[in-house]
Amino acid sequence: MSRAAVAVVGAGHSGFGLAGDLALRGVRVHLYEHPTYEAAIVPIREAGGITVRGVVGEGLARPALVTTDGGEALSGTTLVFVVVPAYAHEAMAEALAPHLHEGHVVVLMPGNAGGALAFRRAVMEKGGPAVTVAEAASFVFACKKEGGAGVWIRGVKNGLPVGVLPSEATEHVMTLVQALYPTFAAATDVLETSLSNANHVAHPPALLLNVARIESTGSDYSFFHEGMTPSVARLTDTIDAERMALVARLGYTPESTLAQLVRFYGDQGFGGPTYYDAVHTTPVHGAARAPASVDHRYFTEDLPYGLVPIVEIGRVLGMSLTATRGVVDVVGALMGVDFWSTGRTAARLGLEGMGVAEMRHYARTGTA
Amino acid sequence: MSRAAVAVVGAGHSGFGLAGDLALRGVRVHLYEHPTYEAAIVPIREAGGITVRGVVGEGLARPALVTTDGGEALSGTTLVFVVVPAYAHEAMAEALAPHLHEGHVVVLMPGNAGGALAFRRAVMEKGGPAVTVAEAASFVFACKKEGGAGVWIRGVKNGLPVGVLPSEATEHVMTLVQALYPTFAAATDVLETSLSNANHVAHPPALLLNVARIESTGSDYSFFHEGMTPSVARLTDTIDAERMALVARLGYTPESTLAQLVRFYGDQGFGGPTYYDAVHTTPVHGAARAPASVDHRYFTEDLPYGLVPIVEIGRVLGMSLTATRGVVDVVGALMGVDFWSTGRTAARLGLEGMGVAEMRHYARTGTA
Repeated sequence: MSRAAVAVVGAGHSGFGLAGDLALRGVRVHLYEHPTYEAAIVPIREAGGITVRGVVGEGLARPALVTTDGGEALSGTTLVFVVVPAYAHEAMAEALAPHLHEGHVVVLMPGNAGGALAFRRAVMEKGGPAVTVAEAASFVFACKKEGGAGVWIRGVKNGLPVGVLPSEATEHVMTLVQALYPTFAAATDVLETSLSNANHVAHPPALLLNVARIESTGSDYSFFHEGMTPSVARLTDTIDAERMALVARLGYTPESTLAQLVRFYGDQGFGGPTYYDAVHTTPVHGAARAPASVDHRYFTEDLPYGLVPIVEIGRVLGMSLTATRGVVDVVGALMGVDFWSTGRTAARLGLEGMGVAEMRHYARTGTA
Repeated sequence: MSRAAVAVVGAGHSGFGLAGDLALRGVRVHLYEHPTYEAAIVPIREAGGITVRGVVGEGLARPALVTTDGGEALSGTTLVFVVVPAYAHEAMAEALAPHLHEGHVVVLMPGNAGGALAFRRAVMEKGGPAVTVAEAASFVFACKKEGGAGVWIRGVKNGLPVGVLPSEATEHVMTLVQALYPTFAAATDVLETSLSNANHVAHPPALLLNVARIESTGSDYSFFHEGMTPSVARLTDTIDAERMALVARLGYTPESTLAQLVRFYGDQGFGGPTYYDAVHTTPVHGAARAPASVDHRYFTEDLPYGLVPIVEIGRVLGMSLTATRGVVDVVGALMGVDFWSTGRTAARLGLEGMGVAEMRHYARTGTA
């Protein structure tokens, strides 16, 4: 267990879960939230900590520091976990840039697609150092806030892939993060993790085909158990197949979302011959209720920061991911949002015009 | 009222409605069904006619002939209404080709997109005459079979556009059809009617966003009143806007689906400031229940014979109808069907490589 302080940036569901779990285990945690969202940390200050329950144990977890001051939060830390929605990555990069030094290791959890590339670029554009930025393919827990200062951790992902930019720092970073989560697994690079986030495959189809149900009858149903119908599963499988074809084209070994989730949660009851069977029965996901509206991160995060960059990378390589693109276009139409202009495009990621070898070089080094 | 017999081809909901209405008014009707589907006409023979109820009146309608013999059905007729799903157009053309002569006027009701072009081509490929083929932009009634030999006519479309191939026969055809339905309105040509079918705009979004609801909780809800949620309406409006942009590009005057439906059903309570309001409250559509599964003509007909040709015609003209294409791709993925190969493509319609002027010439004359 590390004696140095670990910074946890973001006080949403994930920030509560991560800070709560680490502090409960005696890690010195500096929990930071952007001043704009200070309201999120007030209940922790009032309660004197985060009340944790669930599969990691339970108790009152006491972060060493709960702050909206970035300098204070990063002081005395090497490892900085950024656990915010992807649309806040750049804003957090700008807020933290003045306080980052070259020895810092930033871990985006998750990076969604292209997070490490985008975060590192934003830090440097703000005059910050060429900091090491890792990204996990997903968040380590399935968890949810409850009450003002509590969090319920429903599941723990085993074998979560972590990519590092630049990839030559992989061993160094893995030593740091595995001291906290021994099962974290090294990915080849941040392009591989960007294309391996199960959320992007699992969330949008299950929300899209349930949109009218939610708007007409409400969201009081189990999002995965009751919302995962045969058509949802077929659409999900198609999107997963398109993603895997892109992963293979880039020269990585494709892993299905089913296989990945079995790795994450197999010891917690997740399994089955098909994705439909597994998701339909998993206790990890059974309690998750449906979103109350389309204005939810299953669309607003998973599309522009997940499916858009996936389709975009495919397009640059001459591949047409038609079902994936279709989901983005249909949701864009029903929400009135052009995700192709708001999302992480190939141009924004610096990948436009590249071939496979150039993309992989860029993902290893951060330079073209 | 014509003394000559009128052939009605097809004994589905529409065939029952049309044959029933005409026979009830004293028109000599020859009702034909393909031998493969003979079961559909057996109840009529047993009951001695079609029991009609609804907005056109009620009573037992007695077709002069109910047959699976194409020669018998077309004998003594000039006007042949083909009221079958679009995927049966070519099969019907082949079955009727030997019995058609040059004086025949075939009216596809509806033609869906490209029906007249496809039907006429199929007749001639089978050695039939260069017959006149008209197409209506929709079916004249909202109706549904009930019992074995009954039909409930819930609404009548006023001002239904009819296009004629070749368009020089328009006046002749309109004289014939307006003798039966005086409010039928002449369209410019069959390309205009092909791009004006309200079904293609109205059905797919309302089914797509309700798919999981249907598969999870059943189809016992009002398809339009309860299934038409704000997101469904926004997707529908976007698809309608893409269709109207194509119509304008081709040089026709675009009419919104809302405006068209107000023309059809305004006297029957259809109206409102938006499509959402109108569809949400119309008595004409209130009784329609949702499909029981995705394997329903709202997808299997309205996509390959509606949205596919619309997107295809746009593509040939360099336009990208992204939301419309997205619906086809997403439904294709969840059904496991490639509608871009099964549907009416530009190539299949003979429109590949054409510009606006060439398409319009082809639609007027049937020759490139």
